[in-house]
Amino acid sequence: MNQLHQFLAHKAYNLRVSSLVEPAHAGSGHPTTCLSAADIVAVLFFHIMKYDPKVFENPNADRFILSKGHASALLYAVWKEVGLLSEQDLLTYREFNSVLEGHPTFRFPYTEAATGSLGIGLSIGVGEALAAKIDKRDYKTYVLLGDGEIAEGCVWEAAELASYNALENLIAIIDCNRLGQSDATMIGYHADVYAQRFTAFGFTSYVVDGHDIAALLDVFKKAHAVTGKPVAIIAKTVKGYGLEGIENKNGYHGKAFTQKELPALLAHLKERFADAVEASKDYAQQWSPTLPKAEAPIEKQPHISFRNAAYTKGDKVATRKAYGQALQAIGDACSQVVSLDGDVKNSTYAEIFGDAHPDRFVQCFIAEQNMVSMAVGMQRRGKIPFVSTFGAFFTRAHDQIRMAAIGQSPLRLVGSHAGVSIGQDGPSQMALEDIALMRALPESVVLYPSDATSAYALVGCMANHHDGISYLRTTRMETPTLYDIHEPFTIGGCKVLKESDADVACVVAAGVTLHEALKAYEMLKKEGILISVIDLYSIKPLDVDTLIRLGIKSGDLIITVEDHYQEGGLGEAVCSALADTGIVVRSLAVTKLPRSGKPEELLAWCGIDAQAIVNLIK
Amino acid sequence: MNQLHQFLAHKAYNLRVSSLVEPAHAGSGHPTTCLSAADIVAVLFFHIMKYDPKVFENPNADRFILSKGHASALLYAVWKEVGLLSEQDLLTYREFNSVLEGHPTFRFPYTEAATGSLGIGLSIGVGEALAAKIDKRDYKTYVLLGDGEIAEGCVWEAAELASYNALENLIAIIDCNRLGQSDATMIGYHADVYAQRFTAFGFTSYVVDGHDIAALLDVFKKAHAVTGKPVAIIAKTVKGYGLEGIENKNGYHGKAFTQKELPALLAHLKERFADAVEASKDYAQQWSPTLPKAEAPIEKQPHISFRNAAYTKGDKVATRKAYGQALQAIGDACSQVVSLDGDVKNSTYAEIFGDAHPDRFVQCFIAEQNMVSMAVGMQRRGKIPFVSTFGAFFTRAHDQIRMAAIGQSPLRLVGSHAGVSIGQDGPSQMALEDIALMRALPESVVLYPSDATSAYALVGCMANHHDGISYLRTTRMETPTLYDIHEPFTIGGCKVLKESDADVACVVAAGVTLHEALKAYEMLKKEGILISVIDLYSIKPLDVDTLIRLGIKSGDLIITVEDHYQEGGLGEAVCSALADTGIVVRSLAVTKLPRSGKPEELLAWCGIDAQAIVNLIK
Repeated sequence: MNQLHQFLAHKAYNLRVSSLVEPAHAGSGHPTTCLSAADIVAVLFFHIMKYDPKVFENPNADRFILSKGHASALLYAVWKEVGLLSEQDLLTYREFNSVLEGHPTFRFPYTEAATGSLGIGLSIGVGEALAAKIDKRDYKTYVLLGDGEIAEGCVWEAAELASYNALENLIAIIDCNRLGQSDATMIGYHADVYAQRFTAFGFTSYVVDGHDIAALLDVFKKAHAVTGKPVAIIAKTVKGYGLEGIENKNGYHGKAFTQKELPALLAHLKERFADAVEASKDYAQQWSPTLPKAEAPIEKQPHISFRNAAYTKGDKVATRKAYGQALQAIGDACSQVVSLDGDVKNSTYAEIFGDAHPDRFVQCFIAEQNMVSMAVGMQRRGKIPFVSTFGAFFTRAHDQIRMAAIGQSPLRLVGSHAGVSIGQDGPSQMALEDIALMRALPESVVLYPSDATSAYALVGCMANHHDGISYLRTTRMETPTLYDIHEPFTIGGCKVLKESDADVACVVAAGVTLHEALKAYEMLKKEGILISVIDLYSIKPLDVDTLIRLGIKSGDLIITVEDHYQEGGLGEAVCSALADTGIVVRSLAVTKLPRSGKPEELLAWCGIDAQAIVNLIK
Repeated sequence: MNQLHQFLAHKAYNLRVSSLVEPAHAGSGHPTTCLSAADIVAVLFFHIMKYDPKVFENPNADRFILSKGHASALLYAVWKEVGLLSEQDLLTYREFNSVLEGHPTFRFPYTEAATGSLGIGLSIGVGEALAAKIDKRDYKTYVLLGDGEIAEGCVWEAAELASYNALENLIAIIDCNRLGQSDATMIGYHADVYAQRFTAFGFTSYVVDGHDIAALLDVFKKAHAVTGKPVAIIAKTVKGYGLEGIENKNGYHGKAFTQKELPALLAHLKERFADAVEASKDYAQQWSPTLPKAEAPIEKQPHISFRNAAYTKGDKVATRKAYGQALQAIGDACSQVVSLDGDVKNSTYAEIFGDAHPDRFVQCFIAEQNMVSMAVGMQRRGKIPFVSTFGAFFTRAHDQIRMAAIGQSPLRLVGSHAGVSIGQDGPSQMALEDIALMRALPESVVLYPSDATSAYALVGCMANHHDGISYLRTTRMETPTLYDIHEPFTIGGCKVLKESDADVACVVAAGVTLHEALKAYEMLKKEGILISVIDLYSIKPLDVDTLIRLGIKSGDLIITVEDHYQEGGLGEAVCSALADTGIVVRSLAVTKLPRSGKPEELLAWCGIDAQAIVNLIK
């Protein structure tokens, strides 16, 4: 064993010790999962990767994503070895006041990606590797996956996009330890099967002994020589490696050893890895990671000013088209803006951006999960991604969106074809739960414009909103432009479109139903009945003050109307905000399974058109 | 061309004619997508498949799943050729009063699976093929996929489970027409790449000319001879096949031709397929499909009676464990019950069922999307599936659940590890949006028991609930048993646990927070303050009458407390139900991104523990 090998074996030994100590102290965790990956991680962090511990966000540094987030103890152990955490810090693992959470989050500053829901790390890696290509940077992205999580379909979405984009700067390492949580994996130790699958998906694949440091060094050398293809390294490992009687046995997943068991286990490790307990002092003292080219971190929150919209009041323009036009203008103004779309760019109108900025448009094909997590990765590397598909199809990526929210990633999501008003294509294509999905994300913003002017302005608000996920809901059909192009729109605002001193009710709507509300206003006015009308273009956050003011002024009665299921939608947002005010809220929403038909037939059948509003008020 | 070939070519011609006529009449649809698949479908329905048009639900019949649901016009065209729809029927395509929807739903009785969100058909097929294996039936399941949808990760989840289960009775046909909606697919005409991918995933794969009827007949013959492996047939086709100037061109996806264009196009088809316009009268007249062995359809809605629970009031039992115990009892009583779990059976306690009924337990590994759609397929073939994973991970399958709801499939979903009360594992593992997700499904049921007795009883209610999706939310920690085993529980019910004539507020809770509410009751009582307490174990449907009665009686004040995000949860359900009653509702819920910590620390930090309730009331 040469000095390098011995040093790396020593680091792996130290990582193993910490990986046992942390969960034992916490009383929970996944030690055996850490033990299988310790050699891989030691080789990566203490020889292969170039990074600057002092400037973690150096844009030229290699990136490491722990897709198997339950091995968090191993990640923290690394940073202790690097010298940025103390032994005492590690003992706070999983405690309420510690940043060392059960699965990595950004509360810990050396986290590259918040993980813990399996399968998404490779997509984030694809996003980072693609960002490197766009920016012509030469850093590499390493993703460590568990073998169990390879069963997740999103891994294969990531794989196909990686090879389609020829990402030779992406290296996936699969910790093939044979065991999932409750059973052996489907593939077990047939590492060749994983290799065949990755190869078929366009990777160059290698199988290696994941506990052989020389072999690992060699395989990374080979990986670095590959061109035009991403690389998959299937590392055969042993779960619980180093612990006799425990290693390679089912039943030890997610089981922390007790503090009482710990001394014997540590003694056992010391014996098993006797050659690695100490490293050459000289070697260890002179070691430091290879540094990337020095460069300040990328400014991730630029303020983007862009040209005004050019719509004329009364003109019929679809909000989805206004989205595309606004995105192009924002992209013209800021080169960090990128657009990702899932093979519906001609429906979402992301193609307007794509035609103007083909080098910053990413065709993600019909793979929405990967699209969302890829955007997380691109954002992490300094891009400002807008992600578009049919609103209905964001349900396909709900978990990825959930994890992006946990990672506090400022994703901008735009869902088109909202509600039954899309018509003939039928329920599978109608977004009717997207508001519920997007509202139930911590710190999210949910916007739903009714006309081109407001849509255009709100896309701008999203571009400059960096505190979490923002969602814009657009409509398929063309709707009349309601606002002058100088009208201001803000996150958390609303517009009072009709108001008098004789209003009997306040109708609150957004999107297509706002136009129905305006029709209802005219119908009622003819009969001498006055109502106030609010355009609730910001559903989260809500302008509660205006709702209360208008509600009280309009006979203490608010009527919400929305092209969305009742549950979790605009109506419930209003009910919930006004639940302690005494204002009565009546909600019109979609309450049954819709079907194909003409938009106007469906709006009527669902009881969310002008006539339904009129009937309710009368 | 022999008579059979000529007959099939004729049927394909007829299918093409209908596939142009339907969308032209409707003014929307996907004709070019139908044209590429017409020969495949003709060969399947008019020679390969055995089925009884008079008894579509014969349990021995071969099944056909149109995964590329946008080719619905082709499916309807088939049933016109079979003689079960008229030409007039086809002209109602996509109309409001027609059952011939834009994407197939069960309003059309010859639908095997509601599709339209791409990639899920193969999973449904895996479920059907697995049901056949369990029941030792020899029918085959054919799934027609578009090439664009192969990009969806769930396709590969289905593929890996199919080969793991050696489903030689499953035949996937990929209509490889090169073009997606907005662009060429990633793989284009490299059919060999698809073949390599399916082969690597354990299939026997064939590449065939999808417009060569003899070749198609031959490949199905080969497919039927395969043993121990599922089969993938990559059929190279031409989008818009038969229409000069349109075929194989981008830009024609989802574009119906106009009624004005139709005559010329039909004339063109007639010329192009001159040999197929007429079939041998004798052959056509004597044709009928090969019939499966006669058997009555399976009773899909049996009433299941099962043994009582055996819990003692006060004993601490986790509701997730009661789920496993109830499921075992239900499985003992009814052989149609199956359990599907995503490698967390030792956490959800599905393992209790699995240990008792290994032949009816399906390990779905870490692939939640496929698990849900597989359950849809198994239900379609007469099984009563219960599907379990962490509540948080149902977000991964949100689209599949949405589509199951559109397909009115009575899925039973059980999500464990609800809320911040799971503690140290951190936010990625906490279900905090599952109530919102499950409520926003048409006709869904959402149940959230607080103790073992109610959990056990509610699992029984789910088993006997056949009208759509039901969801049960379980808790990680052990909670005290509140109810006697003879206490009745019903979907739509609730329990009033504390009530007096001097209550100042009514606290409504479920799950862990109910126990906090009971603690708050005791704390307040010591200070002479009385509150009523409701166990809202059925969140959808809600017992509105009891909520109103108790709300009015308790000072017109209801306080909801839940271990879930505020948006779309229990609190909003109550707010929404009481929005026109004048009862004030105050909600305690999780309103920020949680973190790792002890359960009690997190409940306190989120303001949903007993002290928070006490503080609010005071």
